[in-house]
Amino acid sequence: MTAMRPANPARESVVKCVDHGAVQTAHDAGWWLDRADRIAVSGDETMSTFGLIEYADANPEVRATYDDIMATRKTDWINNFWKAIAHDPATLKRTWESIKQIMAPGALDPLTKELIYVAVSVTNNCHYCIASHTASAFAKGMTPAMFQELQAVIGMANETNKVVTGYQVEIDERFRPPLPR
Amino acid sequence: MTAMRPANPARESVVKCVDHGAVQTAHDAGWWLDRADRIAVSGDETMSTFGLIEYADANPEVRATYDDIMATRKTDWINNFWKAIAHDPATLKRTWESIKQIMAPGALDPLTKELIYVAVSVTNNCHYCIASHTASAFAKGMTPAMFQELQAVIGMANETNKVVTGYQVEIDERFRPPLPR
Amino acid sequence: MTAMRPANPARESVVKCVDHGAVQTAHDAGWWLDRADRIAVSGDETMSTFGLIEYADANPEVRATYDDIMATRKTDWINNFWKAIAHDPATLKRTWESIKQIMAPGALDPLTKELIYVAVSVTNNCHYCIASHTASAFAKGMTPAMFQELQAVIGMANETNKVVTGYQVEIDERFRPPLPR
Amino acid sequence: MTAMRPANPARESVVKCVDHGAVQTAHDAGWWLDRADRIAVSGDETMSTFGLIEYADANPEVRATYDDIMATRKTDWINNFWKAIAHDPATLKRTWESIKQIMAPGALDPLTKELIYVAVSVTNNCHYCIASHTASAFAKGMTPAMFQELQAVIGMANETNKVVTGYQVEIDERFRPPLPR
Amino acid sequence: MTAMRPANPARESVVKCVDHGAVQTAHDAGWWLDRADRIAVSGDETMSTFGLIEYADANPEVRATYDDIMATRKTDWINNFWKAIAHDPATLKRTWESIKQIMAPGALDPLTKELIYVAVSVTNNCHYCIASHTASAFAKGMTPAMFQELQAVIGMANETNKVVTGYQVEIDERFRPPLPR
Amino acid sequence: MTAMRPANPARESVVKCVDHGAVQTAHDAGWWLDRADRIAVSGDETMSTFGLIEYADANPEVRATYDDIMATRKTDWINNFWKAIAHDPATLKRTWESIKQIMAPGALDPLTKELIYVAVSVTNNCHYCIASHTASAFAKGMTPAMFQELQAVIGMANETNKVVTGYQVEIDERFRPPLPR
Repeated sequence: MTAMRPANPARESVVKCVDHGAVQTAHDAGWWLDRADRIAVSGDETMSTFGLIEYADANPEVRATYDDIMATRKTDWINNFWKAIAHDPATLKRTWESIKQIMAPGALDPLTKELIYVAVSVTNNCHYCIASHTASAFAKGMTPAMFQELQAVIGMANETNKVVTGYQVEIDERFRPPLPR
Repeated sequence: MTAMRPANPARESVVKCVDHGAVQTAHDAGWWLDRADRIAVSGDETMSTFGLIEYADANPEVRATYDDIMATRKTDWINNFWKAIAHDPATLKRTWESIKQIMAPGALDPLTKELIYVAVSVTNNCHYCIASHTASAFAKGMTPAMFQELQAVIGMANETNKVVTGYQVEIDERFRPPLPR
Repeated sequence: MTAMRPANPARESVVKCVDHGAVQTAHDAGWWLDRADRIAVSGDETMSTFGLIEYADANPEVRATYDDIMATRKTDWINNFWKAIAHDPATLKRTWESIKQIMAPGALDPLTKELIYVAVSVTNNCHYCIASHTASAFAKGMTPAMFQELQAVIGMANETNKVVTGYQVEIDERFRPPLPR
Repeated sequence: MTAMRPANPARESVVKCVDHGAVQTAHDAGWWLDRADRIAVSGDETMSTFGLIEYADANPEVRATYDDIMATRKTDWINNFWKAIAHDPATLKRTWESIKQIMAPGALDPLTKELIYVAVSVTNNCHYCIASHTASAFAKGMTPAMFQELQAVIGMANETNKVVTGYQVEIDERFRPPLPR
Repeated sequence: MTAMRPANPARESVVKCVDHGAVQTAHDAGWWLDRADRIAVSGDETMSTFGLIEYADANPEVRATYDDIMATRKTDWINNFWKAIAHDPATLKRTWESIKQIMAPGALDPLTKELIYVAVSVTNNCHYCIASHTASAFAKGMTPAMFQELQAVIGMANETNKVVTGYQVEIDERFRPPLPR
Repeated sequence: MTAMRPANPARESVVKCVDHGAVQTAHDAGWWLDRADRIAVSGDETMSTFGLIEYADANPEVRATYDDIMATRKTDWINNFWKAIAHDPATLKRTWESIKQIMAPGALDPLTKELIYVAVSVTNNCHYCIASHTASAFAKGMTPAMFQELQAVIGMANETNKVVTGYQVEIDERFRPPLPR
């Protein structure tokens, strides 16, 4: 399992520090540091079930997808989501192709699409997705004021979604599909 | 319970029709029509726990909120949600005041806010909210192409929200808040 | 499949009515009535995947559970949920035993437990559960004012749950478990 | 709007019946029938936002996808989901290609995949998906006993998911990813 | 980004400790501590998207809300939720005014309202809300036995919500709204 | 609050290390270590609301359940979930009895049941449950390829669940229950 984790130089250095204490202390600290180390590199969302596949370790199929992600996004960086699912190259490729198609400029602009992505992610309580798509939205021009209005709408919608459900309200005639176009 | 429901003229007319049959027939049909009638006025989302309060039956506090809704929305019509929660005038007023503040034009335009509202409602599976806010979005200028892209983004976000969660992916350093502004 | 559905006398009576039209009409109406009939007995929540098992058709194991439900609840009536899962007598029994234990008076009174049940059901958007537990709560003494406050709290909680998530707020030191008791 | 709906022969026939009544009756019944008709063809899940695109009305791109669905599934029938999203041929094609790839036999057999699909759909409370994938699972060999165990596991998982969350239980060391493979 | 975080005196002190090791050690530990420090002040729920606004840094509008929160709750402390949304003073004020109105004693007592809040938060899987409202409920008199029954009801409701949905159970006639009052 | 936590030998050892620094340093580090220690033993999912009950500290009723868990699972280890709910022995016993009954081999094999459990847990975003049941599934024979297909199906199901809902698609006639068996 250790082979899956990046070398953690801090662990060595702190163990050196703890060596100023007794053998038992070092043993105890080792137990603790092992625990802390695991938290340090993972936290709640952890490192992912199979670990992350870096570019250098990727096979050609995965590298091709990584290359397309970086070229499309004009960046030299791949975020953890792709590295985590790269263990399944077919899913990596299918998911990226879908995202690329769906998030491209169209009838809705890319920033509006990011706002919608954040709205879904908050409603689903997906911490990774909230963090990554909030960052993306800022990168695409979301201002703090837009962020705040976005959150206010998400909160309000979640509230009224439940009030209407709790009161068991019937759909009004004129809202019933199919809708005129 | 019948007293709570608005008179349904259709029921009478169909019973007249059925009267061309036998007494037993009319009786049977009455049983069925009562059932059908209930469906006709309620369906799954039903009529709401306490029934709906029409303008004519509303007290002055409720009427004041109804008036503000209609004036703000430039319409002469109140949808079922408000009529259902009007049994609690304080909640009616508080909810409307919040909605009016949040959905007003600001850093985000009203149509973008509707798209976000739909995204939350679909993710929450709230049929009333989907029907009413989809209708509102069309009224505010959403085109079929925008609707289709909206749904595609909602679907994609729901998919990746779960894939990232299932793979237990850790949040990337650079996505962690607080974010630079 | 028809054997699973209760006889529907209305269908016959309306067909008699339609017989005042032409043969083709009756045929068309039959098509429509078949459709309407299906809706009449099912709606969205439908009749259940396997149909409902009535007491008269139940085996001794199922009857024993039905008897205990009716005795415990001081009623002569079994609601659809139990009739739907009675195809799996072990699940029927286990679920009822759990419900009986959990919903009994304890540190929380039965009405408070119903309010909590409604809160969960609304948040989960479970129409059957909302309808049945709202009715139960009224039967156990919930007043309209209590219902209204319940819905307001549910709505508010759903709103702030999402706002706190969208703003990625860290848990305060003093809220972190384990809590002092 | 009527142009979007398939002709409903029943409506004509019943109106003929109602014509035995008075003009006013016919008018009232018309109002009611229009309402009932809408319910008859839609219900809660309704007909879909834009109506359904039948094969005969589909453009070549949509027909190609319909053809592939029918060929792959060895059927001459397309279910409503595809007809509803066919207004967006790119989404129709992308969604179908993904489903075809993901649901194909692999390390998991097709029936197991359907069981997983049902588990997600029940947890999400998606009535259409529950109905369609439960039917598919039966078609692929699910027995009533399997259905019952599936539902029992879904129920239990939903219960313990919430109990563990409510008690704020920390993940055990040995469960933390990355996992040995 | 460091400028957004409060000074962390611990970091300095531990670095002093590590100075007992070598220069390289201190460097490595610095890397680790930077990582640990981020976790120390954020964890999964992190510090919030924009950081927290302390009273001393708040503008008069925000201070007025903070003052009202503390006066109403008879405390001298503001929890992170309010500090996180204070970047949007209008949302801060609106949310607080709504909470104050909704959570006040009424037909339901404040403790019952907290139990309902916890039930929603657990069902939504909102860790911050679970932690804060569980603490609030204990502060308002919830006993461990009440906590345990609360969790049992939440778990049971989540289970039966899904079993009833998975079996596609139709709502019983007598549960259908509108309900007699 | 420290009294509630199990003794943490690591803390002592690290404090010894810090003692090599100055008094002020030790004080600061103490503050930090207290914080880090809390994270080390809790993280986001934390230690649980009431802490964990170890076997040695358990009463006979709880020990009896622990014994049955270990005997049934052929292990000498109890995971945190059970230790967290052991404060409520009745819930501990009821939950374990239900799990034992439901997860036993039947019409579905134990591995398939674990896959279903994971599918629910991912859809519910329950980190503890994902971590523990993913580990259990691997222990019962899930291969990486099976894991990857499982996640792909979960993702796809979550996507189409929302697309069908957003397009408000009506259930097809032939999917409506009750189903032929």
